[in-house]
Amino acid sequence: MNKLQNLKGFRDFLPKEKRKRDYVANKLKEVFELYGFEPLETPTLEYSEVIMGKYGEEADKLVFQFEDNGGRKVAMRYDQTVPTSRVLAQYSNELPKYFRRYQIQNVFRADKPQKGRYREFTQCDIDIFGSTDPIVDAEIMACTYFAYKNVGFQNIILRFNDRNILFEVLTPFATNAVNVFSIIQSVDKLDKLSQDDVIKELVSKGLDKDSAKKTLQKLEKAEMTENLKQIFKLTIDLGVPKESLEFAPFLARGLDYYTGRIFEVICPDYKNGSLGGGGRYDKLIEQLGGLSTPADGIAFGFDRIIDAATDLGLIPDSETSTKVLVTVFSKDTEKESMNIAKLLRENMISTEVYVNSESKLAKQVGYANDLGIPFVVVIGPDEAKNGIVTLKDMSSGEQWQLKSGELIKKLK
Amino acid sequence: MNKLQNLKGFRDFLPKEKRKRDYVANKLKEVFELYGFEPLETPTLEYSEVIMGKYGEEADKLVFQFEDNGGRKVAMRYDQTVPTSRVLAQYSNELPKYFRRYQIQNVFRADKPQKGRYREFTQCDIDIFGSTDPIVDAEIMACTYFAYKNVGFQNIILRFNDRNILFEVLTPFATNAVNVFSIIQSVDKLDKLSQDDVIKELVSKGLDKDSAKKTLQKLEKAEMTENLKQIFKLTIDLGVPKESLEFAPFLARGLDYYTGRIFEVICPDYKNGSLGGGGRYDKLIEQLGGLSTPADGIAFGFDRIIDAATDLGLIPDSETSTKVLVTVFSKDTEKESMNIAKLLRENMISTEVYVNSESKLAKQVGYANDLGIPFVVVIGPDEAKNGIVTLKDMSSGEQWQLKSGELIKKLK
Repeated sequence: MNKLQNLKGFRDFLPKEKRKRDYVANKLKEVFELYGFEPLETPTLEYSEVIMGKYGEEADKLVFQFEDNGGRKVAMRYDQTVPTSRVLAQYSNELPKYFRRYQIQNVFRADKPQKGRYREFTQCDIDIFGSTDPIVDAEIMACTYFAYKNVGFQNIILRFNDRNILFEVLTPFATNAVNVFSIIQSVDKLDKLSQDDVIKELVSKGLDKDSAKKTLQKLEKAEMTENLKQIFKLTIDLGVPKESLEFAPFLARGLDYYTGRIFEVICPDYKNGSLGGGGRYDKLIEQLGGLSTPADGIAFGFDRIIDAATDLGLIPDSETSTKVLVTVFSKDTEKESMNIAKLLRENMISTEVYVNSESKLAKQVGYANDLGIPFVVVIGPDEAKNGIVTLKDMSSGEQWQLKSGELIKKLK
Repeated sequence: MNKLQNLKGFRDFLPKEKRKRDYVANKLKEVFELYGFEPLETPTLEYSEVIMGKYGEEADKLVFQFEDNGGRKVAMRYDQTVPTSRVLAQYSNELPKYFRRYQIQNVFRADKPQKGRYREFTQCDIDIFGSTDPIVDAEIMACTYFAYKNVGFQNIILRFNDRNILFEVLTPFATNAVNVFSIIQSVDKLDKLSQDDVIKELVSKGLDKDSAKKTLQKLEKAEMTENLKQIFKLTIDLGVPKESLEFAPFLARGLDYYTGRIFEVICPDYKNGSLGGGGRYDKLIEQLGGLSTPADGIAFGFDRIIDAATDLGLIPDSETSTKVLVTVFSKDTEKESMNIAKLLRENMISTEVYVNSESKLAKQVGYANDLGIPFVVVIGPDEAKNGIVTLKDMSSGEQWQLKSGELIKKLK
């Protein structure tokens, strides 16, 4: 084997990292299920024609695509929305009229790898399909808010807007040279660029300076639509604190497929960008070749959530989830060691048995120390004879001689 | 989109099926972690040279392999052992000396799809690397046993043997025409074929009839090796009932890479084959290009476990995990409906809000019925005025008028 390494842009998740990811995924899932979302899984490979041409030409280049042994053109999952639109069409008779699904799977993009951008990464989406009612928007917003809270984020702001506000305010400024989407694209950069820089960009695109300025002034003074007011109210009724909801008339979100409310998730304690975003996209499923299906959802930025939660110390950061190492003093006391391991596990205490009965005891204790296992159990010949064990707390160095019942009590 | 369908041999898991799979995976994980196993995740794609030539020529044909946009030959995960051997070599300084890992990921094989055989399927493995001590074998056997018990299987038998018994007994019968591996291959079929048929096969391979008969007679009378006796004893000390351990001198397990104890998992209540199997493979990691690393593990037959557990009624089989549908009587009572949904969720009761305030109440209740949601909450104008709700039990048809505190108590 020449290349004993992983491909660039792909990651191995060793136990410590994998446990963090599983922890966050489970915290999110808990809330999804509390809100009635159901899990969905689609295959890693699809017919290419299901995938290609759905994300635009630039994106098509990033699809991992190949011909399989049977001569079929196949493509690897690029996102979760397109396969879901296939599922909605293929199983329309089996799925609920108002289908709520969550989906946490890896997607693949042949993108240039760089810091924070990978060729395989996890997407985590929730969506409600089938209704244009503002209750949907509110359910998505509330579930989003409480999912982030459940991961441990204290301070979560949902910034929201309505695409229709952008269209209403900005369409009058559109020209033959600069259409409204192009204006929206520039305005969307206001979280990264100054107002002056955005105005400059609009002018460079072909807007006159006065119009460019006015676009921003008008947006700044824009008011919520009736639809947005209703969503705002319902979201609060569902328990999201008013101060966590921020109307943001400049917010545009990059993708063009949103049709109504859009929103993004900000944690003010974390400075590397939004933690997720989404909105209403009532036309997309049909455009993707499915049935006409209103839809609303959010994509949780899974890697960024891991990053932010790690930075903020929200994820239990132990080296291992194992609580006890049961040492093996010698072949003669193996039975006692196995029996204690059995007892600990019967009491749901995560236990590793040291798997080399010829290692010196000091070496076994050192192993527990290296792995960060917090407790060690020793059963030497004396302990075995007297029906007791020695328990050592690896952080304090304290140790106790205990009967097995006392051992369980102490560790629980 | 012409082909609004999934590829043959690939599966969509709609919510009901996906929940079953998640349920079983979680039950298995619980026990893995109780035994100190840590999660690992490797990428879906690897350099082809990591994968190819590791499973034999026949298997190589089944690898999904292609050239990526950067001209790299890449291959999709074919199993979990080969990528893990890469991980063991690549991160040898970071991993524990006695590394216990579990891994539950999908693998890909360009095999002819047929009943029970898919091109993408889930593998679930546990392994302990780094020690030849029989304690390892016993830990794997015990963890396996209790993992199946935790899924709900009442009756689990671990059939075990030692590859060395097969070699010792059968090598004397090997000839130039029929080597010992070929004899083992035939003997391994004794769970499917009669003794006579196996003898016939051995004869057709070139053994004389007398030898062929004797191979089976000798095996039948074979005794456990000292190593196997020690493993047997330790496994019992770890809590596995003696009657669940069955020495099976004919057991060979297909793959040639095992070097010591081998075993398979049988549920006598399920007739479609073993539910998993594994053993010791002390040479494989080195052969795969890694460091010399003794190893022992088991592959849980994930799809077959799902199948068996479904057949035996071990998996909660509700249509949905949602407990309550909160209906929306009209726009005027939306606030009350949202507030009740909030309260239910605060009390960890999984709740869906009906997302169309214009539907008639009967339609909303019918929706709950279709989805199998067991309880419906109704808040009409009268209820709203009096600060109460109506709770309807969908299976009995009973209903109660309750204050919100009573509602929670009733549902908990």
